[in-house]
Amino acid sequence: MKKEYLMAPGPTPVPPEVLLDMAQPIFHHRTPRFKKLFAEVNVLLKQIVRTSNPVITFASSGTGAMEASIVNTLSPGDKVIVINGGKFGERFGEICKAYGIQVIEVLQEWGIPVEAAQIEAVLKENPDVKAVFSTLCETSSGVVTDIKALGQVVAKTPAILVCDAISGLGADDMRTDEWGVDMLVVGSQKGLMLPPGLAFLSVSEKAKKLIDSCKTPKFYFNLKKALKSYDADDTPWTPAVTLIVGAHKSFSMMIEEGMDNIIARHTKLAQACRCGVQGLGLELFSKAPANTLTAVKVPDGVDGSAFVKKIRDEKGVTIAGGQDKFKGKIFRIAHLGYMNHFDVLISISATEMVLKELGYSFESGAGVKAVQKALL
Amino acid sequence: MKKEYLMAPGPTPVPPEVLLDMAQPIFHHRTPRFKKLFAEVNVLLKQIVRTSNPVITFASSGTGAMEASIVNTLSPGDKVIVINGGKFGERFGEICKAYGIQVIEVLQEWGIPVEAAQIEAVLKENPDVKAVFSTLCETSSGVVTDIKALGQVVAKTPAILVCDAISGLGADDMRTDEWGVDMLVVGSQKGLMLPPGLAFLSVSEKAKKLIDSCKTPKFYFNLKKALKSYDADDTPWTPAVTLIVGAHKSFSMMIEEGMDNIIARHTKLAQACRCGVQGLGLELFSKAPANTLTAVKVPDGVDGSAFVKKIRDEKGVTIAGGQDKFKGKIFRIAHLGYMNHFDVLISISATEMVLKELGYSFESGAGVKAVQKALL
Repeated sequence: MKKEYLMAPGPTPVPPEVLLDMAQPIFHHRTPRFKKLFAEVNVLLKQIVRTSNPVITFASSGTGAMEASIVNTLSPGDKVIVINGGKFGERFGEICKAYGIQVIEVLQEWGIPVEAAQIEAVLKENPDVKAVFSTLCETSSGVVTDIKALGQVVAKTPAILVCDAISGLGADDMRTDEWGVDMLVVGSQKGLMLPPGLAFLSVSEKAKKLIDSCKTPKFYFNLKKALKSYDADDTPWTPAVTLIVGAHKSFSMMIEEGMDNIIARHTKLAQACRCGVQGLGLELFSKAPANTLTAVKVPDGVDGSAFVKKIRDEKGVTIAGGQDKFKGKIFRIAHLGYMNHFDVLISISATEMVLKELGYSFESGAGVKAVQKALL
Repeated sequence: MKKEYLMAPGPTPVPPEVLLDMAQPIFHHRTPRFKKLFAEVNVLLKQIVRTSNPVITFASSGTGAMEASIVNTLSPGDKVIVINGGKFGERFGEICKAYGIQVIEVLQEWGIPVEAAQIEAVLKENPDVKAVFSTLCETSSGVVTDIKALGQVVAKTPAILVCDAISGLGADDMRTDEWGVDMLVVGSQKGLMLPPGLAFLSVSEKAKKLIDSCKTPKFYFNLKKALKSYDADDTPWTPAVTLIVGAHKSFSMMIEEGMDNIIARHTKLAQACRCGVQGLGLELFSKAPANTLTAVKVPDGVDGSAFVKKIRDEKGVTIAGGQDKFKGKIFRIAHLGYMNHFDVLISISATEMVLKELGYSFESGAGVKAVQKALL
């Protein structure tokens, strides 16, 4: 027997009750039954996103909704600010460039959060900026950005604020309307406890104005079409029915727990994880650690890639390594979605055991001890 | 108890063994386990599509793969031929127009198949056409097009042949390579016996040449990126893991049955369905009826929309009504995917019972009698 533990920052474990709901006989999407289900899903989703605006559902990965936020609001030649502090901030820039949009890239060292004042200065120099692209939790570095502060800065300008909360939503606090986020990008396979295959995008009134004047061609990700269908509890193209059925279950579980409780749980798990790795004498990579995942520097003398492989193949624990220039240099443990205290204990225990085997020296049990102490 | 029967042309019933496989604990996609699974899925998929070329998998509805076939091969101003004999042929034209592509629309009366000679003539007048867009089974009318004949005509020109086989594949015969189809568009929720959420697109060498010179912007549906990942048994963006797991099961079931046997089964089911409706004195709508579904004219004096609603709400049988100008005028019964002889019997029996209740006059039992005779 090999029991598997999925501790990577997405896909995250899906609760068995959600998996079983999705295994029910499939039904047709152009029916009162589907419309009712979808309407209920959308009410729950608005509560999770904390918005009174529509939140559109796409059958796609999160990248699809990132693209939708761009091709529906901006036209070739438009100027935007992209905060690039890692792999996913970088992606916003890549998509914009693919569509001929002028990108002012605010390059941020991986692990260091951007300050709202930096963006304020760039906005002042560039009053013609149409949109600011940000990331709630940068999955590649484990950094959480202060979106509230950013929202205050952007709200004073004509620009819209787009925020990628794909990995962050449901772990790091996100108050879409209160903080002035015009478009929140969400993926199913992270804090929402669903398999990958759905992406979501909220649309504020300010964003809608840009949609009306946008000249970039699009079809599958056309928000005007999607918004029109949304008003009729429908989708323009065939929805991913089983995933919508799953969403009904997982979103109901989330609202039953309560968004504040969910954030509190993740805050505690993240803190316990940090205590665990620090108990082992390891250093955190992120200067603003997210609730979503903990990025840790690989200690000197240890091969980071071998570590991630060994922990997966020998202990059955899937965590993530570093990406790009941090490949082999950091590892990332998620505590995201369907997770409780013992999941952090498992991750830290596996980390301890494998680091010991790889020759890293520390007091045995120091990690799990620190986790348990933090959880008490 | 209400037992439900899904007899609409997609989503179609998913075998319980596929649903249960999809309910297994989810796992990470950047792992040897996923790579192995995906590689196996891709081998099976090529056999189903009957091609030796790559078949790319998208997390999207079928419309996403239709868009991918356009934005990766054509540039604004390019000239194409679109065969529009219904809702789905029409969609190819809509997508092309959204991207500034010049469309020569071959408008075909719904229910009448296009002749290869018509397209040959248009191609002769327009030697600069870059692509011909066709539909294997036009779901809105129940027409199957002779793609083999079309392929012979297009192969002689520099144009590529794109074929939407979303509803047709796995029911109507399709020999992608043999018939000279350069890009076959496929959806998961029809003959492939999966839930909606995956789309597939085959890419021939002739199509690849167009990809290299294509200037239309794209990102999520970028085929160059997808082809590169495909070579490493990978996807550029997070794949819809549970649906890929399901695909492994359903594709294995299909290859075990054999493509020729699958087509023979659907040929027989379609014939039985046609005998059933004709036994009731009803008229077929399509002059070239597909194996995928049977489109039937609503008899005079019967309200077609009320019929479709009643058969669903009172008998638990979901069939499809007509679309656009044929709303209320036709109804459509699918015999597609996870279906056998008794499924046709159920559809015809439900049709008989509800038509009788709505005042249509015929010899009781004539439909089921004709179905059973055809099946013997």
